[in-house]
Amino acid sequence: MPNLTFEIYGKTHVRLLQVLRHNGVHEVVEIDVTVLLEGNLADCYLTGNNSQVLPTDTMKNTVYALARQYPIETIEDFASRLGRHFLNRLRHVSRVKISITQTAWDRIGSHDSSFVQSSKERRNAQLFVTPGAESITCGLRNLQILKTSRSAFVGFLKDEYTTLPETGDRLMGTVVDADWTLASGIQAHEFNQLHQDIRRVLLDCFSIHDSLSVQHTLYAMADAVLKEFDQVLDIHLTMPNKHCLVVDLSRFGLDNPNQIFVPTDEPSGYIEARVSR
Amino acid sequence: MPNLTFEIYGKTHVRLLQVLRHNGVHEVVEIDVTVLLEGNLADCYLTGNNSQVLPTDTMKNTVYALARQYPIETIEDFASRLGRHFLNRLRHVSRVKISITQTAWDRIGSHDSSFVQSSKERRNAQLFVTPGAESITCGLRNLQILKTSRSAFVGFLKDEYTTLPETGDRLMGTVVDADWTLASGIQAHEFNQLHQDIRRVLLDCFSIHDSLSVQHTLYAMADAVLKEFDQVLDIHLTMPNKHCLVVDLSRFGLDNPNQIFVPTDEPSGYIEARVSR
Amino acid sequence: MPNLTFEIYGKTHVRLLQVLRHNGVHEVVEIDVTVLLEGNLADCYLTGNNSQVLPTDTMKNTVYALARQYPIETIEDFASRLGRHFLNRLRHVSRVKISITQTAWDRIGSHDSSFVQSSKERRNAQLFVTPGAESITCGLRNLQILKTSRSAFVGFLKDEYTTLPETGDRLMGTVVDADWTLASGIQAHEFNQLHQDIRRVLLDCFSIHDSLSVQHTLYAMADAVLKEFDQVLDIHLTMPNKHCLVVDLSRFGLDNPNQIFVPTDEPSGYIEARVSR
Amino acid sequence: MPNLTFEIYGKTHVRLLQVLRHNGVHEVVEIDVTVLLEGNLADCYLTGNNSQVLPTDTMKNTVYALARQYPIETIEDFASRLGRHFLNRLRHVSRVKISITQTAWDRIGSHDSSFVQSSKERRNAQLFVTPGAESITCGLRNLQILKTSRSAFVGFLKDEYTTLPETGDRLMGTVVDADWTLASGIQAHEFNQLHQDIRRVLLDCFSIHDSLSVQHTLYAMADAVLKEFDQVLDIHLTMPNKHCLVVDLSRFGLDNPNQIFVPTDEPSGYIEARVSR
Repeated sequence: MPNLTFEIYGKTHVRLLQVLRHNGVHEVVEIDVTVLLEGNLADCYLTGNNSQVLPTDTMKNTVYALARQYPIETIEDFASRLGRHFLNRLRHVSRVKISITQTAWDRIGSHDSSFVQSSKERRNAQLFVTPGAESITCGLRNLQILKTSRSAFVGFLKDEYTTLPETGDRLMGTVVDADWTLASGIQAHEFNQLHQDIRRVLLDCFSIHDSLSVQHTLYAMADAVLKEFDQVLDIHLTMPNKHCLVVDLSRFGLDNPNQIFVPTDEPSGYIEARVSR
Repeated sequence: MPNLTFEIYGKTHVRLLQVLRHNGVHEVVEIDVTVLLEGNLADCYLTGNNSQVLPTDTMKNTVYALARQYPIETIEDFASRLGRHFLNRLRHVSRVKISITQTAWDRIGSHDSSFVQSSKERRNAQLFVTPGAESITCGLRNLQILKTSRSAFVGFLKDEYTTLPETGDRLMGTVVDADWTLASGIQAHEFNQLHQDIRRVLLDCFSIHDSLSVQHTLYAMADAVLKEFDQVLDIHLTMPNKHCLVVDLSRFGLDNPNQIFVPTDEPSGYIEARVSR
Repeated sequence: MPNLTFEIYGKTHVRLLQVLRHNGVHEVVEIDVTVLLEGNLADCYLTGNNSQVLPTDTMKNTVYALARQYPIETIEDFASRLGRHFLNRLRHVSRVKISITQTAWDRIGSHDSSFVQSSKERRNAQLFVTPGAESITCGLRNLQILKTSRSAFVGFLKDEYTTLPETGDRLMGTVVDADWTLASGIQAHEFNQLHQDIRRVLLDCFSIHDSLSVQHTLYAMADAVLKEFDQVLDIHLTMPNKHCLVVDLSRFGLDNPNQIFVPTDEPSGYIEARVSR
Repeated sequence: MPNLTFEIYGKTHVRLLQVLRHNGVHEVVEIDVTVLLEGNLADCYLTGNNSQVLPTDTMKNTVYALARQYPIETIEDFASRLGRHFLNRLRHVSRVKISITQTAWDRIGSHDSSFVQSSKERRNAQLFVTPGAESITCGLRNLQILKTSRSAFVGFLKDEYTTLPETGDRLMGTVVDADWTLASGIQAHEFNQLHQDIRRVLLDCFSIHDSLSVQHTLYAMADAVLKEFDQVLDIHLTMPNKHCLVVDLSRFGLDNPNQIFVPTDEPSGYIEARVSR
């Protein structure tokens, strides 16, 4: 008899845009929601009995209906509300995961009701809720950054296939994905400020760090967040090395003192780590 | 005998990142360059005689070599330099088109040499140069905007397949591509400021316009630019209607006073126009 | 008074999947439709008067309703039906453009009702209809091909920025977009076969041609289609040069007799031409 | 003192195309390789000491050099060779993961040296090698399939947000990602045939299954593979429910007996499971 070991399902990419109207001054919240349920769901796989299967279409409807009843103040708070909603009414579900990605809309100038989606960076929250516990991981996606000084890479291992020259001055570019797990007890109104503060610490540390490698800087950034924010229990960073290659201009009788580069998308270095207390 | 009617070729997506260093304070310029040549090129198609074919690989090299010799102050200026370079040395080429798209890197805080690529919006310049004339079209791509008031759509044509309700209050979202043709005589140092000013007029007009349709607002925005800037000869705007659909919550006993929407990517309305003096 | 010069609008990316059922044996047709109207539409831009504006939402509904009434035999035939529908009922419209892209679903084995979407190639039709005339351009998109012999590039123009070596044996890879204009009078049931035949001639010519450049092969392919098919009035081909770069293995004491390559997406050469009778 | 818990790094998306030449008859193998090393790498994070860090650039070079020395017969075999190469020479590395994705190039007709990249489906292999053990997981990505009969969804859980109607006849479309772990001892020359056979069993089962839900069919497909192939130890399938929505044509006085659908990309149902012996 084969053994069925994962029993999870849900709805991904439920898109929602909410307009909050305060006496003519509007705000816009745009999110992309994923709902995933875990539990005793084996029957539908094995026999086609759907009596314990809440349709994923209902999950979608629920997202819209709850947003109407409880306007989205922060994605962390809304994730928690959604997660508890499903857990409370589905006795056979042992764990709910809610993942929300937020697309920022910034006000255009001082206009009351017009907005520009200026950034490709996204804010993220992942909530896990079980009958006994609730945990939240917050973070950001697609934060593309570059430093043009204070980045070296020397003293590395070499073999017969190594052609990379050592360098005391290179560009370091990356696209950060970050996830930090928060202690419980944070209030709904605190999440927005906390997100901004952690993001600023990550960027400042990246900027001033005398980098000996991407790993070295990644650790420094994670460490800075843990040092600064008692509420952060651990932090995971993914920082692929998006290479900017120095162009060889000597063929044309020109020097190139780290001035002209080709930015490339592939291949890229893959660097990540989790740092916890 | 078949007739060969287009004779154009070139290199697309030459990516270049230039670091400009001013006593420890750095700037970063990232561009994507396309070079296209037009002229008496029929022979290579018809007989395989390549004696008039400058390799597209050489075009790529030229982009890097010229950027080293003439640091990129503005994309408009660099496009002009590139275009004239090719036209001057290739007697059989009747027209050169240079298209440059710039990816903005913003300084992180007040740090000297670290940057964030925050926006997915791009700045664009297209230069056409012939032995007798040079013209430049500037613009922007992928400016995603949304207004949540002052947008109506009523009084439209109806037939048996029309189900869209008339509405005096809807969301209007779009992703603007804009191209404006400039009069000659603009100085290299003026392009950056002019770009910012035209962009601001487009956004302000979009924000305050009492819109009766996307077409109506598109025209108002184009008209505002022509009124404000004598240097702009014409302007072309593409403003697809990126629909935000009101979710029907009445099935759940809830109202939805224009508060909960589904943002969609497809299908979308296609709206565009060129307005000239 | 500014001058409004383009007056076109419509709906893009209307996606439709039709299941045709023949006594238990099914067929699937998936298309993506764009409807664009041209005509005397200035009023809606200038004054916001929408009385001549058929909503793009109605265009979408019409696509679905007509597909129900007239099952899609070929995209060319359905484009024609759609185009004439809009032209006939909208007196102020001077021209309708219908563009349809088809995604192929192939039957899985000999099963009656299961399908696999195996290819990323697309079939395309563009119809233009005016009160007096109707013309159809057929074609394909995203046909990715590669030849590993019979491709040379020598005798080209050189200057101080040329580093590309001449080569008598290189890889030639491209992603073909093709559009051919057909004479009138082709019957609906002939389009499918004709599409397959033209595609086969393009592929065969690409395969056997002794290529002296991409331009040289592009012209040979276009010429072969014109020679073989009297119904084709002209053909436009776009064949970007998707470079496969030979890896320099001499640094590791290894030769590389055109065996190990890096396929790249950017930059790429841009090559295109139109050949007509 | 913070705790560093992941210590993994490597190179992703090393693209390689190999031409194998057999007396004028060519074959093309295109792969995308990821190399990831795990081990005692903490020092580079904590102190910037790179003495145990093999540059990811060297990993890239190694991929090319080994492919030249050992032509790629199957991706499974090449993954194993790469994995053992890194493990054998890096004493501080405890585990190597090699992931290879293959893009198929099919011969054009019977031509000796021309090819078409017809499918967007990809073949995949993931190898894990430690000093004591080697395991291989094979699979496929992006296999887009659709069945137009024998698919029902009834008897599911309902609540106040459920609007989905029960249906005995719906379309079921999905994009399969599959990974199966193989027993050791499979010979290099067997991998290609085995891949084809497993793929065929997955497709046949999908086609003939009387589906009561996506989960039900997923399990049947996994079970069929385990029953048919003794070498398969377990199999993981991801089968998102890519919805095709029935268009309501009653507004236009038309019926729609499961004939006209809107294929959608988002939101989608997320369905997955692992089945093992």
